[in-house]
Amino acid sequence: MAPSAVTSSCVSAAALDHLPVKLAGKAPGQNGTTNGLQLRDVHTTSLVLRTFRCLIADLCEQFKGGHPGGAMGMAAIGVALWKYVMRYSPENPNFFNRDRFVLSNGHTCLWQYTFMHLVGYKNMTLDQLKSYHSTRTDSICPGHPEIEHEGIEVTTGPLGQGIANAVGLAMATKNLAATYNKPGFELVNNKTWCMIGDACLQEGVALEAISLAGHWRLDNLIVMYDNNQVTCDGSVDLANTEDVNAKMTASGWEVLEVADGDNNVEAIVAALVTARSSNSGKPVFVNIKTTIGVGSKVAGDAKAHGAAFGAEEVANIKKASGFDPEKHFVVSDTVYDFFGEIKSRGRHLESEWRELVSDYGNAYPDLAYEFALRVKGQFTKDWANIIPAKEDLPTAPTASRKSAGLVCNPLAERLKTFMVGTADLSPSVNMIWRDKVDFQHPDLRPTCGITGDYTGRYIHWGIREHAMAAISNGLAAFNKGTILPVTSSFFMFYLYAAPAVRMGALQRLQAIHIATHDSIGTGEDGPTHQPIELAALYRAMPNLLYMRPADSEETAGAFMTALSATDTPSILSLSRQNLTQYPQYSRRDGVARGAYVFIEQEDADVTLIGVGSEMSFAVRARDVLLERFNLKARVVSFPCQRLFERQPREYKAEVLQYRAGIPRVVIEAYAVNGWERYADAGYSMSSFGHSLPGAAAYKYFGYDDEVIAERVSAFVGEVKREGMESIRGEFRDLNVSEH
Amino acid sequence: MAPSAVTSSCVSAAALDHLPVKLAGKAPGQNGTTNGLQLRDVHTTSLVLRTFRCLIADLCEQFKGGHPGGAMGMAAIGVALWKYVMRYSPENPNFFNRDRFVLSNGHTCLWQYTFMHLVGYKNMTLDQLKSYHSTRTDSICPGHPEIEHEGIEVTTGPLGQGIANAVGLAMATKNLAATYNKPGFELVNNKTWCMIGDACLQEGVALEAISLAGHWRLDNLIVMYDNNQVTCDGSVDLANTEDVNAKMTASGWEVLEVADGDNNVEAIVAALVTARSSNSGKPVFVNIKTTIGVGSKVAGDAKAHGAAFGAEEVANIKKASGFDPEKHFVVSDTVYDFFGEIKSRGRHLESEWRELVSDYGNAYPDLAYEFALRVKGQFTKDWANIIPAKEDLPTAPTASRKSAGLVCNPLAERLKTFMVGTADLSPSVNMIWRDKVDFQHPDLRPTCGITGDYTGRYIHWGIREHAMAAISNGLAAFNKGTILPVTSSFFMFYLYAAPAVRMGALQRLQAIHIATHDSIGTGEDGPTHQPIELAALYRAMPNLLYMRPADSEETAGAFMTALSATDTPSILSLSRQNLTQYPQYSRRDGVARGAYVFIEQEDADVTLIGVGSEMSFAVRARDVLLERFNLKARVVSFPCQRLFERQPREYKAEVLQYRAGIPRVVIEAYAVNGWERYADAGYSMSSFGHSLPGAAAYKYFGYDDEVIAERVSAFVGEVKREGMESIRGEFRDLNVSEH
Repeated sequence: MAPSAVTSSCVSAAALDHLPVKLAGKAPGQNGTTNGLQLRDVHTTSLVLRTFRCLIADLCEQFKGGHPGGAMGMAAIGVALWKYVMRYSPENPNFFNRDRFVLSNGHTCLWQYTFMHLVGYKNMTLDQLKSYHSTRTDSICPGHPEIEHEGIEVTTGPLGQGIANAVGLAMATKNLAATYNKPGFELVNNKTWCMIGDACLQEGVALEAISLAGHWRLDNLIVMYDNNQVTCDGSVDLANTEDVNAKMTASGWEVLEVADGDNNVEAIVAALVTARSSNSGKPVFVNIKTTIGVGSKVAGDAKAHGAAFGAEEVANIKKASGFDPEKHFVVSDTVYDFFGEIKSRGRHLESEWRELVSDYGNAYPDLAYEFALRVKGQFTKDWANIIPAKEDLPTAPTASRKSAGLVCNPLAERLKTFMVGTADLSPSVNMIWRDKVDFQHPDLRPTCGITGDYTGRYIHWGIREHAMAAISNGLAAFNKGTILPVTSSFFMFYLYAAPAVRMGALQRLQAIHIATHDSIGTGEDGPTHQPIELAALYRAMPNLLYMRPADSEETAGAFMTALSATDTPSILSLSRQNLTQYPQYSRRDGVARGAYVFIEQEDADVTLIGVGSEMSFAVRARDVLLERFNLKARVVSFPCQRLFERQPREYKAEVLQYRAGIPRVVIEAYAVNGWERYADAGYSMSSFGHSLPGAAAYKYFGYDDEVIAERVSAFVGEVKREGMESIRGEFRDLNVSEH
Repeated sequence: MAPSAVTSSCVSAAALDHLPVKLAGKAPGQNGTTNGLQLRDVHTTSLVLRTFRCLIADLCEQFKGGHPGGAMGMAAIGVALWKYVMRYSPENPNFFNRDRFVLSNGHTCLWQYTFMHLVGYKNMTLDQLKSYHSTRTDSICPGHPEIEHEGIEVTTGPLGQGIANAVGLAMATKNLAATYNKPGFELVNNKTWCMIGDACLQEGVALEAISLAGHWRLDNLIVMYDNNQVTCDGSVDLANTEDVNAKMTASGWEVLEVADGDNNVEAIVAALVTARSSNSGKPVFVNIKTTIGVGSKVAGDAKAHGAAFGAEEVANIKKASGFDPEKHFVVSDTVYDFFGEIKSRGRHLESEWRELVSDYGNAYPDLAYEFALRVKGQFTKDWANIIPAKEDLPTAPTASRKSAGLVCNPLAERLKTFMVGTADLSPSVNMIWRDKVDFQHPDLRPTCGITGDYTGRYIHWGIREHAMAAISNGLAAFNKGTILPVTSSFFMFYLYAAPAVRMGALQRLQAIHIATHDSIGTGEDGPTHQPIELAALYRAMPNLLYMRPADSEETAGAFMTALSATDTPSILSLSRQNLTQYPQYSRRDGVARGAYVFIEQEDADVTLIGVGSEMSFAVRARDVLLERFNLKARVVSFPCQRLFERQPREYKAEVLQYRAGIPRVVIEAYAVNGWERYADAGYSMSSFGHSLPGAAAYKYFGYDDEVIAERVSAFVGEVKREGMESIRGEFRDLNVSEH
């Protein structure tokens, strides 16, 4: 199917009525000679474009770095978007119903910063623009956009993440709209705009997210493709010769094209207006042909991508633009004036919305109350009361993936904040609650029997772990606390999701990742499915809580900790196999401290550190040590290293007793890396796993109470003979397997 | 464009001539009534399919687990592939020019194992088949196919990896064919067949690989899509409603369809023969409609996917199949006989090929000699002589990404074994050698000016880090040592590639990953591009060498180590910024031992562990410690933890001097996790990075010679006052930053 080329005839007057601003005092759509739009006079638009491009060149030149080419090439798109089409309020970047904008090609951030400056974001001064690539630590213009700074919706940079975030932002709008909007009360109806380059369109996470957006028919999502056909290596043809438009169409997207994206602001406006008002029931892909570094001598070349032009060329660009080459960072009043109306427009948008919300409060007081709480990022019920008490948890052996369902499902049932999904593992992860509704487009029911609608909060992500986590970042970023994404998959496949989990941690976005099948206990699926080294990544990742609860009580504690951590994503690492329950020892509040004494023991000969799904080996080895070797062991439960690190030194000393001269052995079926901080010896994995039933896999790798007790006993014996001094600085691996 | 439905009329007699076996003694293509093919009689084929399905049901039932549904649904595809179309030799699974087969939907491995049994792989006995999901540690039938076992080309299981591996296998054929084939001498002309399910087609890594295969026009790659429209969660429509065929077409693939993949072996054979002989110049996607669990009462349902059917239902399946429900694992002689000719066919294929190679040796003796070395997996030149000597390396400050180019590019220039590529970072990673030729389809030159051909060994991967690593696994797996893939990107984006890097380590596939921009020294790109926690993953990953060389000499050592490690992938972690060169201290052979004494010091007060790009902080801090604090420091260089772990205990003690009572401080701008094994204190990162120029970023986070020396001095002072005993079990973080 051929995409629609946007020409004069295809923008209807009705569509143009949706424009947030009257265009140059004329009724739009009346003038066939300018593609149906009469924008500000051509001279002013040209001045704005030339000014913008020279400013970009100056900003990159001052410190001889940055990405000028893309930003210059996207100038006309920026004018169309920031001045004519997008609805937002520069004076209140957090206006709830604002259109969201995501710069998926984050390296072109100067483009966004500069437009934010021109339209009047108050912190984005010219002085701040000049801090790009500087040594100033107060800069709000980092090398890629960062969510910490006003007006930036999500941090981007790692390619492909941004468009996936945008899908999440658009989903959030759909879900909130379906939940709260009423006839005459469009409380939430914002659009999500995403700028994307050639690179993002190659990344797998973007391709996954594109499939999902098409599947969900997110017609409130508009992706603007800066089609300049250049990446770092040169022509895109070096690595990609596919038919992008046809691929997007096949993925369920509406495709529009703009032939001259360098200068034809009117055509871009027309396309974006068409996209904004599209009633195709599909997300819209606007393919805009541009020239990287337009206006410079390296226009259209990869050289324009990632380096400053050099002073001489910057001077040439200015001369060609009709400016004084000796003057730098020049923005005339005419240019500022061009964008002058945007602030008042934003104020107006916001006041209209506040009035609407106020009227809604009269018409639907209960919903309005709930909506207000959601806007404030507050839960609508006290979650602490929903979490099962210890006495309501199972005492018979239970897989912690089941325990997680027992805790999470009642929360998800009662709290609309929860959006819970799985990467195609519904039967395995147990995250389905009573009467859950799937997040789906309602039209799927008649066409293929799939139930659900946009109020649905259970998400079938398909087999797309990376997009699951990246889109969840978008859900969480919509407005702090309004949506809590809960993802689920096998722990091993959070390696696929890792780049997005990291972006969540970096952005301080709360999310809960339910990671089941978390050790060699996973069994028959074998080494491809048995995590060994993955915990080392997540334990080292800043601002992430990787928690391995040992039983149902600790699982409840892990959820409480994760729910309290409103600036931090959490991974709950859970077993496939049944775990012994320890109601006599385990404590939910212990999880919050990272580690705690599980079984205290006077005159202990050794401290055994038990971890998560392998706790029972520690407890049973303790019995064997006493019975066979007359050695007394205390047991520490250690679900989370990062939480433990936050404890006072005294608490740490009390739990680990490192002053007492009692050797400590950690028992876990992972690579030991990182445990050396807390233990003197480790009973751990030094190889990949093996395809065997779970219990047999444990045994194969030496996870056997008797064998563990023997090796621990030998180690303790050595320490007793030779003194603690003898093991100083030489961590002992007690389970060096032959496999 | 509508895909071609394969019907009686579309398989030409010429195409059928390519069938590796005469079909039932008839000239093929003469009988219009059976889709142009006359296969063995319909009754026998039906018996084979029924036998196969009942065997699968029995094998899953014995231990109540496994994935029967997909294997049963793909029975007819298997008959078509293993009996009629694929060229291989069961008696020599390593026959060089065999067709490669990859089971991307690896959970259906019983399907492959069972066909391998039926066609006569000698190790794949019925007894072995019964070991699937058993506790037998000698099983060659793990829960997913594993490369260790004869006849398995690559380990699969994590979805999406297999098809990417298949792309690599097909590339290997193209490259070898272009390099060695001559008119009349098609030494290498095998096809790569890949089975794929609905799940793989959703994974980003597969979508990246699909784009690349289309771009490269790999017409020797045939992907057979087991289109059963069911995944774990249920209907594929729950998460994917895109037009798969149109998407494949847009990605540059030829699409064929088979409407009845359950039973119509003839139609499948016709499609596969068409695919095998296609001259479209495109990879071929054969969309085959099947029914998961066909023949069972849960046919077409997700319940058939991942669980045994239960004894009663297995009995029902057998009854419906006309078999005795009381008998298990039954394969009649008729069925074995049906596959009986395959062994001799394989022997014939192989002897023909050996004759061809022999004749080639007479016609092209030099090339034949080189080819023979490649087949044996040997380098054609002594790589050790190509690596620059110490005196030929730079002494002025040099970025280690540049050092890597100095070492690698002469190797790549002279050794055809090297296939080197980059995820669109050619200007940054410096891996281009003189007169390098790109791996490209030659027809791109006239159509879009892209140069290169299939002899090319420089690969533009595009912005597809995950596929880069996954496809490289396929390159390496083609035949051990024949191709050495070298990938390159920023270190941070090896997080995108991590699932594939892991699969390489698990499969013992040699590869070298050039990971530049490896710390906060990366600078302005900011925290999204500055790795902090990633090294913890790769240091914990079994069978992977993560090496951080400190200068050019150590970079040479890292390459020597990586080249010697023929069963292990390596990551070379390299700086963006210039590094001080230490020819007086650094030693290439030191890298091979993981760590070594860089600067020895009598009566040392402290050991400073310097690592890679941050080595200069250790060396300069040493000077400050002496000058300002009168403290003597020795310095250890520690490029690789895993290599150090392999050293004898005495060597470790000598390097780290942990018996000597000298406290050890590691200095690295990463999360410290794992270093606690070797150090008593760490100067490390406890947060994500910051967007600042590299030098400023270091300073911002306390990486400053004076500050480091002050903190180390305070720590050493405390130890001197209170004794080594005082720090036992309490690792000290000397750089707890406020950021």
